[in-house]
Amino acid sequence: MQDFDFPHWADAQCQQVEQALAAWVGIGAPAGLGDAMRYAVLDGGKRLRPLLALAAAQAVGGNAAAALRAACAVELIHAYSLVHDDMPCMDNDVLRRGKPTVHIAFGQAQALLAGDALQAQAFELLTPDVADAPGVPAAMQADLCRILARAAGAQGMAGGQAIDLASVGQPLTEAQLRRMHRLKTGALLEASVLLGAACGQADAQALAALHAYAQALGLAFQVVDDVLDVVADAATLGKTPGKDAANDKPTYVALLGLDGAQALAQDLLAQACAALQASGLADTRALLALARQVVGRSH
Amino acid sequence: MQDFDFPHWADAQCQQVEQALAAWVGIGAPAGLGDAMRYAVLDGGKRLRPLLALAAAQAVGGNAAAALRAACAVELIHAYSLVHDDMPCMDNDVLRRGKPTVHIAFGQAQALLAGDALQAQAFELLTPDVADAPGVPAAMQADLCRILARAAGAQGMAGGQAIDLASVGQPLTEAQLRRMHRLKTGALLEASVLLGAACGQADAQALAALHAYAQALGLAFQVVDDVLDVVADAATLGKTPGKDAANDKPTYVALLGLDGAQALAQDLLAQACAALQASGLADTRALLALARQVVGRSH
Repeated sequence: MQDFDFPHWADAQCQQVEQALAAWVGIGAPAGLGDAMRYAVLDGGKRLRPLLALAAAQAVGGNAAAALRAACAVELIHAYSLVHDDMPCMDNDVLRRGKPTVHIAFGQAQALLAGDALQAQAFELLTPDVADAPGVPAAMQADLCRILARAAGAQGMAGGQAIDLASVGQPLTEAQLRRMHRLKTGALLEASVLLGAACGQADAQALAALHAYAQALGLAFQVVDDVLDVVADAATLGKTPGKDAANDKPTYVALLGLDGAQALAQDLLAQACAALQASGLADTRALLALARQVVGRSH
Repeated sequence: MQDFDFPHWADAQCQQVEQALAAWVGIGAPAGLGDAMRYAVLDGGKRLRPLLALAAAQAVGGNAAAALRAACAVELIHAYSLVHDDMPCMDNDVLRRGKPTVHIAFGQAQALLAGDALQAQAFELLTPDVADAPGVPAAMQADLCRILARAAGAQGMAGGQAIDLASVGQPLTEAQLRRMHRLKTGALLEASVLLGAACGQADAQALAALHAYAQALGLAFQVVDDVLDVVADAATLGKTPGKDAANDKPTYVALLGLDGAQALAQDLLAQACAALQASGLADTRALLALARQVVGRSH
């Protein structure tokens, strides 16, 4: 197990994802829409969700063609959510990953459409013609669409954003905050792992363990996000820091204090690691390294 | 063939669709999101797309459970597009089907999220668990997702909207106008028919004929829309008339004159009827009646 070179693995996976996204996103879209879609997706982002999907697929010995499509599809859902989230009627952000947000660069109408089109393209990527992707069976396509649609929708990411909207200026309990983030950020991170698992034949024990891993990781991601919003500066973060406090949004730091939030992140990392050990899967090194990266990141 | 009672058929189908939508849309969505989704979808609309899907499914002897899901899914895509289209950064409409638009009733942020969640739910409806819909095979689920995603995305409806945005104030040729509407409105109407067909086993001849029917009908729908925007009043139309001219949007009436546009609509109706006659399908009466309704409608 000592010889696993995570940076090398992650670079190779990311390269594959970047190439696939560059080959697929917004191609053939008319009237500037493709430009806005590509601007939103390419050359930016940590590709955490694709890496989770690919790591989970490898852990279960999954279909590589399906896993690459799943990895890109979940990234498109993530990218569309950022485009819409940044719009003036939502968070009204002008900077994202150090660049002007899509609605600043392309106008609000095009940003709205680009987000909508990215969501649709996620499901296009999951349902290739047999001629385009002979290795992705129809039953697997249906499973992938089911997982992604649920995670993106009203009982997943979009629902979490609605709770977030409603919670501005409201004191939340830790349970309420957990529920909000489980939907808003957690659902799609969790789906990334489940999508990867659906590319192979995981048994019930492995699936349950991957589920527990993904839930702990999803929550840890948000806790660390809240911590970084307080301690990082704009250059490191690539976006405007301190916005949550300024917008009176409930955060783990507000609820638990900075030390308490950091301790919770470490506790969740331990839970994620324990889940992987209980999975019965032979090689979960990439998943383990990803969990460590999520908790240790500085942006 | 004389004994087909279209109003009776359409009423029965609509009732089934309304019940299914009421049972499914936005259920379990948190924080007011479900209310906004249901407001956008229920008790409104002519349900033309669901009726096309159900009529096509019946013409090919399709799976009824799959057809009902497809009918509702395409309506959710249509409904989400209207919610986003009405927003201030797009058409800035305050009335839709005689009611305040979603962003007026629920605010822009919730309208944005409701549209996003409706698109996701369309794909959720197409990918039920086997336990929920044992009669919808996985391969059919994948086909339905493929058809709907392409029709909704950048090379379908969203792409058409981008062309529409870019075309304001620009004189278009008839070919350019046709391309815009083929994507903006036509793609989803066409998909409605193809979704229905995908619920059964249509041969190549029938599929090609249904495709030709759907294309003619999709274009006819838009031509009639342009005509109604000029000749109808707000009470009949259920939305603000004269907006296209006021916004300097290209229309068939501007291009061909009122008489020319009306003649084109009749010509497209004849094409749709001819396609059905060439389909080799035993019973296309509902599809025929729907084409006549589209061209003869007053709102």
